[in-house]
Amino acid sequence: MSDTRKDVVIIGSGPAGLSAAVYAKRALLDVAVIEKEMFSGGQIVTTDRVDNLLGFYGTNGYDLSVKFREHADALEVPFMEGTVTDIANQDDYKEVHLEDGSVIETTAVIVATGATHRKLGVEGEAKFAGAGVSYCATCDGAFFRNKTVAVVGGGDVALEDALYLANVCEKVYLIHRRDELRGAKVLQQRIFDAANIEFLPHTEVRKICGENMVDHIVIEDNRTEEKRDLALSGIFIAVGMQPQTALVKEVVEMENGYIRAGEDCRTNIPFLYAIGDVRTKTVRQIATAIGDGAAVIASLEHDLLQ
Amino acid sequence: MSDTRKDVVIIGSGPAGLSAAVYAKRALLDVAVIEKEMFSGGQIVTTDRVDNLLGFYGTNGYDLSVKFREHADALEVPFMEGTVTDIANQDDYKEVHLEDGSVIETTAVIVATGATHRKLGVEGEAKFAGAGVSYCATCDGAFFRNKTVAVVGGGDVALEDALYLANVCEKVYLIHRRDELRGAKVLQQRIFDAANIEFLPHTEVRKICGENMVDHIVIEDNRTEEKRDLALSGIFIAVGMQPQTALVKEVVEMENGYIRAGEDCRTNIPFLYAIGDVRTKTVRQIATAIGDGAAVIASLEHDLLQ
Repeated sequence: MSDTRKDVVIIGSGPAGLSAAVYAKRALLDVAVIEKEMFSGGQIVTTDRVDNLLGFYGTNGYDLSVKFREHADALEVPFMEGTVTDIANQDDYKEVHLEDGSVIETTAVIVATGATHRKLGVEGEAKFAGAGVSYCATCDGAFFRNKTVAVVGGGDVALEDALYLANVCEKVYLIHRRDELRGAKVLQQRIFDAANIEFLPHTEVRKICGENMVDHIVIEDNRTEEKRDLALSGIFIAVGMQPQTALVKEVVEMENGYIRAGEDCRTNIPFLYAIGDVRTKTVRQIATAIGDGAAVIASLEHDLLQ
Repeated sequence: MSDTRKDVVIIGSGPAGLSAAVYAKRALLDVAVIEKEMFSGGQIVTTDRVDNLLGFYGTNGYDLSVKFREHADALEVPFMEGTVTDIANQDDYKEVHLEDGSVIETTAVIVATGATHRKLGVEGEAKFAGAGVSYCATCDGAFFRNKTVAVVGGGDVALEDALYLANVCEKVYLIHRRDELRGAKVLQQRIFDAANIEFLPHTEVRKICGENMVDHIVIEDNRTEEKRDLALSGIFIAVGMQPQTALVKEVVEMENGYIRAGEDCRTNIPFLYAIGDVRTKTVRQIATAIGDGAAVIASLEHDLLQ
């Protein structure tokens, strides 16, 4: 066994990965965390306000991510910035290959890679990314002050985005392909109460248009198939998340695009675990991600004793 | 349907119950929380230090419980002090009966009653409760300053208790019926490093003795069956938890003393849910309890739409 072999490598440092790192340290495991971004925190780095994580009422997502990272730092969790390109199974250990050519030997790997924003897949979406097309209202909303924008989607995030933008922009269209919104009723009520939000149900975006910047989109009523132009400066796409599974999806059992793993966070591959938004679960929240961090280290400690 | 019928009544206000209350409020549900103690927080109220809940490094348990409760208060969660004596299923609702005779009608009930300390079951244990016998080192340790005490148990809590008491007391015996401790290795290491903690493996307590206060216990080596007296002033019993299931154990499916419920927190009875330490789960931590609070409200919202 190599002197430098780790007990566990955690890929990703959102709430799930950081919670697992804290638990790993408390279990005296030799742990390393690999993060491809400059910041820890995952999706919450760009979340405007977190209200439902017990003990953190009305916290800004970025501040929360800093607090989470500080906890791991206080326990001297080693972090590495890098992109993992492969996880190779050896007889009794795994190799984690990084883009820079380095290889880390480890007994166990925890995949905590989370999820990213799903694309709409229409003409103009890629062309105008960063030029009127955005996936993060709280990141980019301020660029559209007193302008007209649209939010596409019907879930919590879409509703939250529309409400956030209503405070910044002149007018907000909320475009959803169905009749009814999916998001929390408290958010729906606020949407319907907002004077400058117009809900466009059974409507789909067909094209995003402009010269250098977006100046209009083409929408279609999916019941009448009637198309029309909608003049606006920005379109915020909030149509769900894409789990980040490219690293493992060929080797591990998957389900509906997610890594198949239960509450104990074990996958079908020994010593390969999945936590947070990337695994199959009913509710993807900071609270459940942090719980996974506790659960996975208990599973790992148990498995190491077998 | 009664005007006063609640959507959901949460029984218990530890981390699980409070997290569920926060999510219920955010979902615009008409919720009430019933707590039999004067304080919310459950077990953490008497926890000295919480190190492993992400974002709360080195927090005192009582302070944490106050912060949790403040979050619920900020969302105007209604709390009632009282003891639930029965949950009666009616056709399309449930009745929650309280000790004072009042009855609350509700569509759903979430059992978040947690767990309490398991008893050793030896002679003298009940007699000397509060007179040398304790189940909470951080509550009662200060009464034994510069005295000799014993901690009974081999899990995390026993180890944490022994370490806490080692800072307060002259001498601490750690009594465990097995050869090896079960608790986290980081804690084990600190136990073995502590000059004033003596580990007594394969040892069982047979009797707790004294006049008005404990002055010695009788212990037995369970390999040789040799008995001897151990002079001490206090004995801290940390042999595990007893899930608080008396309310429902005759009506709901149970498993190993816990309410059988998966990650979605549904029991086998419609609109009866179990969250936190009282349900079957692999890891009972604040982190997983808070996650349950998020998961159960998602399940409830889903079930209400059926």
